[in-house]
Amino acid sequence: MTRVAVVGATGYAGAELVRILAGHPKVKLAALTSRQHSGKIFSHVYPSMAGIVDMPCEEFSADSLAESVDLIFMALPHKLPMEIVPLLLRKGMRIIDLSADFRFLDVTLYETHYQPHTCPELLKKAVYGLCEVYTEKIRSADIIGNPGCYPTCTLLPLIPLIKAGLIETERIIVDSKSGVSGAGRSPSLTTHHCEVNESFKAYKVADHRHNPEMDEVLSREADKPMHVTFVPHLVPMTRGMETTIYATLKNQAGKEQIRNCIREFYKGRPFVRLRSEGIAADTLHVKGTNFCDIGIHVDQAAKMVVLTSAIDNLVKGAAGQAVQNMNIMLGLDETLGLMAVPYPL
Amino acid sequence: MTRVAVVGATGYAGAELVRILAGHPKVKLAALTSRQHSGKIFSHVYPSMAGIVDMPCEEFSADSLAESVDLIFMALPHKLPMEIVPLLLRKGMRIIDLSADFRFLDVTLYETHYQPHTCPELLKKAVYGLCEVYTEKIRSADIIGNPGCYPTCTLLPLIPLIKAGLIETERIIVDSKSGVSGAGRSPSLTTHHCEVNESFKAYKVADHRHNPEMDEVLSREADKPMHVTFVPHLVPMTRGMETTIYATLKNQAGKEQIRNCIREFYKGRPFVRLRSEGIAADTLHVKGTNFCDIGIHVDQAAKMVVLTSAIDNLVKGAAGQAVQNMNIMLGLDETLGLMAVPYPL
Amino acid sequence: MTRVAVVGATGYAGAELVRILAGHPKVKLAALTSRQHSGKIFSHVYPSMAGIVDMPCEEFSADSLAESVDLIFMALPHKLPMEIVPLLLRKGMRIIDLSADFRFLDVTLYETHYQPHTCPELLKKAVYGLCEVYTEKIRSADIIGNPGCYPTCTLLPLIPLIKAGLIETERIIVDSKSGVSGAGRSPSLTTHHCEVNESFKAYKVADHRHNPEMDEVLSREADKPMHVTFVPHLVPMTRGMETTIYATLKNQAGKEQIRNCIREFYKGRPFVRLRSEGIAADTLHVKGTNFCDIGIHVDQAAKMVVLTSAIDNLVKGAAGQAVQNMNIMLGLDETLGLMAVPYPL
Amino acid sequence: MTRVAVVGATGYAGAELVRILAGHPKVKLAALTSRQHSGKIFSHVYPSMAGIVDMPCEEFSADSLAESVDLIFMALPHKLPMEIVPLLLRKGMRIIDLSADFRFLDVTLYETHYQPHTCPELLKKAVYGLCEVYTEKIRSADIIGNPGCYPTCTLLPLIPLIKAGLIETERIIVDSKSGVSGAGRSPSLTTHHCEVNESFKAYKVADHRHNPEMDEVLSREADKPMHVTFVPHLVPMTRGMETTIYATLKNQAGKEQIRNCIREFYKGRPFVRLRSEGIAADTLHVKGTNFCDIGIHVDQAAKMVVLTSAIDNLVKGAAGQAVQNMNIMLGLDETLGLMAVPYPL
Repeated sequence: MTRVAVVGATGYAGAELVRILAGHPKVKLAALTSRQHSGKIFSHVYPSMAGIVDMPCEEFSADSLAESVDLIFMALPHKLPMEIVPLLLRKGMRIIDLSADFRFLDVTLYETHYQPHTCPELLKKAVYGLCEVYTEKIRSADIIGNPGCYPTCTLLPLIPLIKAGLIETERIIVDSKSGVSGAGRSPSLTTHHCEVNESFKAYKVADHRHNPEMDEVLSREADKPMHVTFVPHLVPMTRGMETTIYATLKNQAGKEQIRNCIREFYKGRPFVRLRSEGIAADTLHVKGTNFCDIGIHVDQAAKMVVLTSAIDNLVKGAAGQAVQNMNIMLGLDETLGLMAVPYPL
Repeated sequence: MTRVAVVGATGYAGAELVRILAGHPKVKLAALTSRQHSGKIFSHVYPSMAGIVDMPCEEFSADSLAESVDLIFMALPHKLPMEIVPLLLRKGMRIIDLSADFRFLDVTLYETHYQPHTCPELLKKAVYGLCEVYTEKIRSADIIGNPGCYPTCTLLPLIPLIKAGLIETERIIVDSKSGVSGAGRSPSLTTHHCEVNESFKAYKVADHRHNPEMDEVLSREADKPMHVTFVPHLVPMTRGMETTIYATLKNQAGKEQIRNCIREFYKGRPFVRLRSEGIAADTLHVKGTNFCDIGIHVDQAAKMVVLTSAIDNLVKGAAGQAVQNMNIMLGLDETLGLMAVPYPL
Repeated sequence: MTRVAVVGATGYAGAELVRILAGHPKVKLAALTSRQHSGKIFSHVYPSMAGIVDMPCEEFSADSLAESVDLIFMALPHKLPMEIVPLLLRKGMRIIDLSADFRFLDVTLYETHYQPHTCPELLKKAVYGLCEVYTEKIRSADIIGNPGCYPTCTLLPLIPLIKAGLIETERIIVDSKSGVSGAGRSPSLTTHHCEVNESFKAYKVADHRHNPEMDEVLSREADKPMHVTFVPHLVPMTRGMETTIYATLKNQAGKEQIRNCIREFYKGRPFVRLRSEGIAADTLHVKGTNFCDIGIHVDQAAKMVVLTSAIDNLVKGAAGQAVQNMNIMLGLDETLGLMAVPYPL
Repeated sequence: MTRVAVVGATGYAGAELVRILAGHPKVKLAALTSRQHSGKIFSHVYPSMAGIVDMPCEEFSADSLAESVDLIFMALPHKLPMEIVPLLLRKGMRIIDLSADFRFLDVTLYETHYQPHTCPELLKKAVYGLCEVYTEKIRSADIIGNPGCYPTCTLLPLIPLIKAGLIETERIIVDSKSGVSGAGRSPSLTTHHCEVNESFKAYKVADHRHNPEMDEVLSREADKPMHVTFVPHLVPMTRGMETTIYATLKNQAGKEQIRNCIREFYKGRPFVRLRSEGIAADTLHVKGTNFCDIGIHVDQAAKMVVLTSAIDNLVKGAAGQAVQNMNIMLGLDETLGLMAVPYPL
């Protein structure tokens, strides 16, 4: 049994990690930390887990974690992780960080969109944890930058086509829609039920920090600078993310070629599911799961492929992919702890 | 491995049975039947389960089931089950029926509220499957009348107090609220999103067929005729049921006595959870689980106890309790297949 | 044209006052005040009103209001109004206060449930603004304590029956359900979309401050001490409140007597609507309106009447009733500004 | 007073017409027809309007309408209107048709996407009722093809830029999201609350019948063949539509030029509102109103303008625009009956 800790266990991504890890057959949930709720029983913060996860939340302490755990999930706001990760690595722990702090290779990109980085030398060591794409590197990584939810939902359908040269790398549109849990648990007007309910809107139009994250990964895979136009939207629901991607077909590629390319790319990978012919991805069908569903359509008149992808932003977009990363790092079956039968609704 | 079938697998209760049974470690899901979707792959009807439950839905056939399964879950509208259960029993199968057909002891009660019963002789043989209360009888039952969602949510908090004589048996008010999935999957104006959204209303006021079901069970436990005033309401959400019960305290019983009584009654039973002092039951905390959460309050000025209980209407109120019944019938741990760690939200 | 101000214009009740008053034919909206948003254009806080209500929000100033307005709506949290109302009254303004500060006759009741009252002498002068019941007193009032949402929804159906002696005054149960806007605009975990969505729960069980408010009014009308058992619940929707009331029938009263009693009581009053035979009140049908819909059912076996009532908590439960009070105070038709054709959904 | 009828009054668009027309100061609502509910009182079908619109719904009869009304709103499914419009026109009535039957100039386009047209000669006579664009033609029209909701939300922001030559006419992406009321009132699995709730998905990807409607109008305005890539999505809310449009900037146009172009185009037209710098359109802010809000953003790196537009699909996207068309046809102020102060939430 690998002993793991969740640092920042009482935010939504943290709590979702607790849910998955508490049911994981090869893991012992050894410590939970929380600034806001330290001293409280976890299930007093999330009463759904009463009787199931009744551990206390502790203050963060590197020393104490070094003694009790082998691997750490960090579910903190960015900036905090880079301050403590170097120490934890030195103490021999492996780390899966859900913030943006270890997602970028190019430190200036990070610093342009976030803040000065305090351990840029670690960025080369860190592996971008997009499980289906960087599997090999993940195996031996000590520090994983777990991908953002929007990049996960965007990169999984796009990368196979980019690598196969089936679409133009320019003028790609990424129109994405997220449930409210993506905004975290801290109350704000943005997440106030009365302001969300019956509201649908774009936000941070062409100005979201997940845009440079996508662009860097795509540029790497395309082997040339790429930039997509990315617009996130807020949907009045708790969980789920849908992304509609528009790209120009190249080399007379058609729907079948697109479908085959994606199918081949993810062959043997259980968490990417292609929807049937003519059916678009639906967040309802991935709710609570680690799946990424992908639908493929073509607008023949415009020579455009339209991809729809759906994930649960808290699972494949955060905690689920983090656990999948852990499974890969530990040499386990990547589905362990992540394959509960999905709810019908 | 026990071989089981779900008859009526594509309604909401049926699909929830499929979800639970597909993940159950001691069960082989051997057949699914559906009138409406016979011939279709189950996961085409419920795409969340694509890649997980890809069995076909068949037409119902008693003969074919008799060959392939040991135990049958029936998730059909009432009236249909009583027509086929006698035959299935004769063929040696054990049956858990989710309709009202086998819930009543008194056939005239059933016939007053439903229709003529075609096998009244079976009512004495059938066991009312309220797991925590009738455990012993369930063990050896061949035919279970799985309780209605409203009765489950009402009887679990009430029965201990009735049996202990802590509350008056008269003037009990049962004010219950259900999510929309309780109305089933068939489209209707009642379940149309635009008619449900931003709507809260009572329906079938003091006229719901679950009322005589509760009354019969309560009368049996109280050993005298009982009638509660029951009003169901519809909540704009998918899953979940909350019931607020008002009863007059007897013999100067106070909050602690009430709490101890319920705690003792369900000692060792994992699916009934008492909420902390001062906290009411919340459907969010039982969503997707087989738990029944109970909160206890007292209005001292009125000498009334106020009980709040919450269940997931599709799980503890239907499919989950049905599987719990099966576990008990098969001599298994009653939690098997039902103890996934709950979602934090 | 009467010149009016809304003090506390940017909370939900304040904004709803602005909506109604901006469309009122006999009123000039002369000033809006807001602590949090002073200096901002109102429609920057509520962009739906862009181009319609583009007035600035000001800091509160009694002197400046005294010069520019005749009547003030106060939509502040309790405690603040009692500190400024005496001054405003001395300056000759009439006041409709939406807080609890002027709702009680008995100052000790207020002080037990809120805090010490700083101008108890005004409580005798203040009129409880339940429009359909205290119309005459409202006409000549200078200070109105606008009723709470729960009391409005409860008292309107109950008072006629209490006064007519058709129901027992003891053991009345008031089971009430409110949309989230009742919790106000300040963000909190309680109003966070992800905590509200798919959640239904009771709160402040038999411990809500609207309970003594109801009790005081009912006691006055019954001419003897009354106490109802009141439990509020939170519904995952923005607007709307439904109350289900259970009372024991007296003197062999039946459904028709109950119906006639309520119908007669509200004869000629446009905002109370009796639902048709067998139909319960539904929040969807009063959304955005000043109506209170009432449904009447009887549980014959228990000799109980079950009343269902529905209001929009922000309109009849707050801003709408406040404007109705103003209409009565000014000798106008009570429906002025309040009779837009309701939305079908 | 103009005497008007609503044919098909009990669907959602019909009911919304009833709401607006019942409050219109220059109109007498003379007749309502409904196949499904003929003989019923309108407010029995939509109880929110009890006491306000208590007219009966009648069977459709051209003769009877000819006697009692001057102008007819037709809110029927397509195919039905073209069968009765010629007769009504001959009887001298003016008609605003909310179906697709009179929206196309090119009959083959209509016939490709719908069915054979039975009165193609009327298509030249009919005016496409996009109020702000075709105002002059609308004035004298006898038959209006009221625009679809998606085309309205798309064309209003696009047309000014197309006409001014500020954007490329190729590779325009229209990613649109609609509330559920757009699917109408007939129950179906698509509109079942449990299937919609927590679901976000695209449908009819690049295959929706509003696509050729947009294309025809845009081609006319651009004076060359145009085709946009259009993907509609379903949002779990009742009312509201948001459209995010991506177009390539031409001639080094920047954000200010775009903003000025749209502002000038709609100068003096009250129903198009430009959102402040940096703010995207939000359906919450147009709910229940006839406004179209437009936000403007630029992705400089991709040389793309991103337009966001929001309407209430039942108002500006259907009934509201229809009444605005009537106002224009009758020479009235175009805002009559449409300018209630919007709700803050």
